[in-house]
Amino acid sequence: MTALELTGHSLIAGRTVAGTGASFHAIAPATGDELEPSYSQIDVDQLREATAAADEAFPSFSALAPEAHAAFLDSVADEIEKIRDAIVERAMQETGLPNARLNGEVGRTAGQLRMFAGVVRSGLFRGVRIDPAIPDRAPAPRVDIRQRKLPVGPVAVFGASNFPLAFSTAGGDTASALAAGCPVIFKAHSSHPGTSELVANAIARAVASHDLHPGVFSAIFGPGRTVGQALVTDPVIQAVGFTGSRSGGLSLVQAAQSRAVPIPVYAEMSSVNPVFILPGALDDGIEDLATAYVTSAVGSSGQLCTQPGTVFVPEGEKGDAFVAAVSTAIAASTGQTMLSPSIASAWRDGTATRDDHAEVTARGSDGSGPHAPAPVIHSASLEQFMSNEVLHEEIFGAASLIVRYRDVAELPAAAEHLEGQLTATLHLTDADAADAAALLPVLERKAGRILANGWPTGVEVGHAMVHGGPFPATSDPRTTSVGSLAIERFLRPVAYQNLPDALLPEPLKDANPWGVPRLIDGALEG
Amino acid sequence: MTALELTGHSLIAGRTVAGTGASFHAIAPATGDELEPSYSQIDVDQLREATAAADEAFPSFSALAPEAHAAFLDSVADEIEKIRDAIVERAMQETGLPNARLNGEVGRTAGQLRMFAGVVRSGLFRGVRIDPAIPDRAPAPRVDIRQRKLPVGPVAVFGASNFPLAFSTAGGDTASALAAGCPVIFKAHSSHPGTSELVANAIARAVASHDLHPGVFSAIFGPGRTVGQALVTDPVIQAVGFTGSRSGGLSLVQAAQSRAVPIPVYAEMSSVNPVFILPGALDDGIEDLATAYVTSAVGSSGQLCTQPGTVFVPEGEKGDAFVAAVSTAIAASTGQTMLSPSIASAWRDGTATRDDHAEVTARGSDGSGPHAPAPVIHSASLEQFMSNEVLHEEIFGAASLIVRYRDVAELPAAAEHLEGQLTATLHLTDADAADAAALLPVLERKAGRILANGWPTGVEVGHAMVHGGPFPATSDPRTTSVGSLAIERFLRPVAYQNLPDALLPEPLKDANPWGVPRLIDGALEG
Repeated sequence: MTALELTGHSLIAGRTVAGTGASFHAIAPATGDELEPSYSQIDVDQLREATAAADEAFPSFSALAPEAHAAFLDSVADEIEKIRDAIVERAMQETGLPNARLNGEVGRTAGQLRMFAGVVRSGLFRGVRIDPAIPDRAPAPRVDIRQRKLPVGPVAVFGASNFPLAFSTAGGDTASALAAGCPVIFKAHSSHPGTSELVANAIARAVASHDLHPGVFSAIFGPGRTVGQALVTDPVIQAVGFTGSRSGGLSLVQAAQSRAVPIPVYAEMSSVNPVFILPGALDDGIEDLATAYVTSAVGSSGQLCTQPGTVFVPEGEKGDAFVAAVSTAIAASTGQTMLSPSIASAWRDGTATRDDHAEVTARGSDGSGPHAPAPVIHSASLEQFMSNEVLHEEIFGAASLIVRYRDVAELPAAAEHLEGQLTATLHLTDADAADAAALLPVLERKAGRILANGWPTGVEVGHAMVHGGPFPATSDPRTTSVGSLAIERFLRPVAYQNLPDALLPEPLKDANPWGVPRLIDGALEG
Repeated sequence: MTALELTGHSLIAGRTVAGTGASFHAIAPATGDELEPSYSQIDVDQLREATAAADEAFPSFSALAPEAHAAFLDSVADEIEKIRDAIVERAMQETGLPNARLNGEVGRTAGQLRMFAGVVRSGLFRGVRIDPAIPDRAPAPRVDIRQRKLPVGPVAVFGASNFPLAFSTAGGDTASALAAGCPVIFKAHSSHPGTSELVANAIARAVASHDLHPGVFSAIFGPGRTVGQALVTDPVIQAVGFTGSRSGGLSLVQAAQSRAVPIPVYAEMSSVNPVFILPGALDDGIEDLATAYVTSAVGSSGQLCTQPGTVFVPEGEKGDAFVAAVSTAIAASTGQTMLSPSIASAWRDGTATRDDHAEVTARGSDGSGPHAPAPVIHSASLEQFMSNEVLHEEIFGAASLIVRYRDVAELPAAAEHLEGQLTATLHLTDADAADAAALLPVLERKAGRILANGWPTGVEVGHAMVHGGPFPATSDPRTTSVGSLAIERFLRPVAYQNLPDALLPEPLKDANPWGVPRLIDGALEG
């Protein structure tokens, strides 16, 4: 068997394991055809092999020295890039996404792993704080207390349908959990099992080449209702990462809260990513703005967490000109194949419902194949939007709603009326500064990321990114699933009081053998 | 009315508000007598005045410049210390705790506020991260992205019975929420309403003297089942701090999760704070060790979150000598008045149940008054402990269980068997280092703080402290309720992409007018 041959089986702690459950095939969304091989699903007993191995792997993996730890993450990136072509080829078949997008996603996935390798080398995430003893303090001496952040334990990650690489097997959740020092059990999305298997094997090769315990990583295929639930409720698992639908996320949250020992679920769920076009932004460049909107709304068939689903546009001549330019661009657009038949079907249902509640402003043409519906833009007045909850629902795919407002002073109240969002965007010029300043405090409470004069798709991976936001955008707005801050989801602080230096973990020893940044009495050292 | 006259009413956004509900009196636990005045309880409509005011106060309070913000926290500390004698006098009546302990608690409360003033001045908690634009990056330019942590919004704090100051009106939860920039609605514990009113008025004077919006702080009296639940489920409230019983904490967690928009509850609940006396620790100093144990177990009538409730002692001669010394000290001890009749009654029930499952090793004498029961120590074998869940239950008060082990190699499994804890303690010498090293990884997964050669009571307030731990010690082990890290409970990250400098919040502006520490491209500046 070569590295690129697909077995159709799960990877459990370095071993290929044929599932005892029902099998399934990936479906090529472009044709509706089944793709070989068939994938076997594991049962709950087989799952226990993965969680037991993760539990066994935790002590050594969580104590790995920084350079060994970072080199492992770099190797995962290398192993993925070595099989880039095979990954892209299979992912194209399984998702219908174009080559350039998938090639970019491989680069993003590898880049993300290397960013976390840098985070591990820098050591800031270890949260080291030292309050040295003050033996002569009155009325009572102070003892030495040291704090560090520890990995929480094995983590379950659920792959997303819309990013077969960057939010999947070796995606942001896996990368940040591994960087924290947590073994990962990855439950693959059934829409791209072959892509998942290729990447899982790349990770396994990195685990093996670094002589790590094989329980550091498993990738399993199994039914959500049995194996997925059993994974979240397994006592070994200490946190969960998920990207997908609101119903899927909430069912994991509920399962996690029902445990004897509840655990956090980091679910990134739904967002309409409101865009506020302030009047000054239409003073010129209307055509370019309209084109950029349409590109952001229909790219990847609109199947992006940060797709601009609701755009507030002023009434009047310039707003009309913008809407006309958008209509022209949409009318000229062609549907692209969606990720799966069920996603295409949900999109059709959602847009058909919206047809009954808002005006159809423009519709493109159907693309080739059965699951490439025509992009559509609807319009409504702000009054309609404020009074009709149907118009607040996310439609996952190439659909967007234009909301026309009369007066920019109406926007703060409109923003207050929105649910929690991943992003909120302002288009403005200097003339709009006062209106933007009035809107900003509302947007800060509603969204995880605020943009000016751009479009929310294309989430940069970096240290300052927040891909998160208030419920229901995510289940936990205190964090992010993209960017280096994501590592904090999988850490918890522990204090050590008066421990002999020999017993202290490496990052807390007096000599600071790992060279980590330290807060001494609350101030950064050095 | 002088500053020290008690009204028996709630403080809502700077106004004294007579509740429309049933009244109650504090009970002096030493005598069982009612203390004047009677306290009126507010209803849910009156609560809405407090939450609406907190919502109104949020925009200005959350944007306060660091020096104004820190000076306010310092003023709260000053106002409390100005009325120290009145606070201590009333708290003694309401709690039965001794003068020295309450005086210390005033100092700790003021010191905690001043520590958070320092945290606000240093600005590290703002979590500023800047990834500057890279206009010439290939294949696509990078836009400027900046991140900061924002206060989550108004916070509800529930006072604890056992710390009428440090975990109450102006205690750690309130101090850390105010330091984060969150208005606070404090629900007073019914056992020390007068102490709460005195401190609430001190906070209100600081709010007024700094010209802050009065909604920054309210302190209310009301029934838990109606007003307490309504507070947690009010859409304005964005997080909850609580210290108390497991049932009380879990009911708040459930209410918070049932909201349309769920919010985090930081509940510090229960812990038996296991202590492992390794064989070497008994090589000498047995008497001193026994005395220190008894002091920690019975001080404040044992009513401390970190009271050592379970102590593992080796079998054999030296262990017997330790137990004998403990027995002598306990037999010589006298009960102190407990915080309330109901707490004393729960203690009696708990120890009576334990009498049926473990041997009574020593019992002291009842103290004066109706609620000062005799301290008691029970003993059991490790086998009994491992097989009997009753012996794992916390008894809040002056009771502790000695568990005798045969072989130090049994301890890791015993530790695995424990629930999540606030603390775990090792007593050891150099000879025990290998055994301690084997136990440490288990303890790290079970507890928020690990001590060597000390006793867990007396929680130091500092930057490195963790007063938290795995469920059920707390509802959220990712954080602490004591120490400067506690501020992070009330913050969430927001990213700003490509915003004009003029629109950026102060800590993110290029010129860094607040002089906050910044992470530029992942590395600390300067």
